[in-house]
Amino acid sequence: MSDPASTTRERLIDVATDLFRSHSVAGTSLQMISDELGITKSAIYYHFRTRDELLEAVLEPLITKLQELVDEASAQRGARAQADAMLRGFAALAVANRTLIPVLTGDAAVGQVLRSRQAWAAVVARQMELLAGAQPGMAGQVGAAIVMSGISSAVGLDYAGTDEQMLEHLISAGRRTLGLRGQRVR
Amino acid sequence: MSDPASTTRERLIDVATDLFRSHSVAGTSLQMISDELGITKSAIYYHFRTRDELLEAVLEPLITKLQELVDEASAQRGARAQADAMLRGFAALAVANRTLIPVLTGDAAVGQVLRSRQAWAAVVARQMELLAGAQPGMAGQVGAAIVMSGISSAVGLDYAGTDEQMLEHLISAGRRTLGLRGQRVR
Repeated sequence: MSDPASTTRERLIDVATDLFRSHSVAGTSLQMISDELGITKSAIYYHFRTRDELLEAVLEPLITKLQELVDEASAQRGARAQADAMLRGFAALAVANRTLIPVLTGDAAVGQVLRSRQAWAAVVARQMELLAGAQPGMAGQVGAAIVMSGISSAVGLDYAGTDEQMLEHLISAGRRTLGLRGQRVR
Repeated sequence: MSDPASTTRERLIDVATDLFRSHSVAGTSLQMISDELGITKSAIYYHFRTRDELLEAVLEPLITKLQELVDEASAQRGARAQADAMLRGFAALAVANRTLIPVLTGDAAVGQVLRSRQAWAAVVARQMELLAGAQPGMAGQVGAAIVMSGISSAVGLDYAGTDEQMLEHLISAGRRTLGLRGQRVR
């Protein structure tokens, strides 16, 4: 028997995720969510007081996974191996969440939530640092920003191939962007 | 003597652009714009009936410039030279509009406007085609998507260098992503 409270909570997260996908986070109101689910707004308030609390619930599993990927990449020896591991992990995460990730990246509301939760902001900053590590200074920063935003957006392409092919292309392009291809020795 | 009507129109576009920057397009209402300018909503309606009409006025000069860049790139001989010209032009456009471009890319409202205006959608599609041209099939598509979204986002970085340095880094990383570096001959 499922717990009815937790079921409503999960349905709320699912419906919010769908509406975020089609209307962006800023374009989604709690009213739209309650209309879609056919429940009252006070039933929503029992679980989430604001849209941002719902957004945090949507982001939570992604950030938890990202933290694992950051830890795995950090455990590699050398800046190039770390950048490579972070790239591969992030590309796989993006492909596995290909309808959601493109909507969340660059969204103003997501940026605000990430900035307001220091632990989450730290995970994203560490991811950038790992991706940037294979090249010095501003070149590293620019490469990391291109790879992170670029992959987040490219997985949203309406592509003909399989997810595995998409993943291979993302990793291959990402390695070139980060200056990893064919330069295994520093 | 400036025409008061055109001045109000320009101020509306400026204020809307600022609010789009700080709140995203979906997070900006005509009410917020009228509050910011201290004018009535009916004064806004005289110029723009909806937020999307205002958004179109913000996008118009960028799309006009993009069309010029697409034409220049298309005039180059060979797919690699075309991709290279498109990359350089787009990177310069992004750097010149570095506080605005990161907000517009990936915004759901911008995507809807682009899809609804066929001529504009065609310019963006042609830009993607030119960027993708240096590599076959899905590799080209993925590289083009990474470069377009990646550059749009990376110009928003809080960087220490000059705009010229940023432009050089974007072009250098973009060329690697598109498979252009060191492979001038097909």
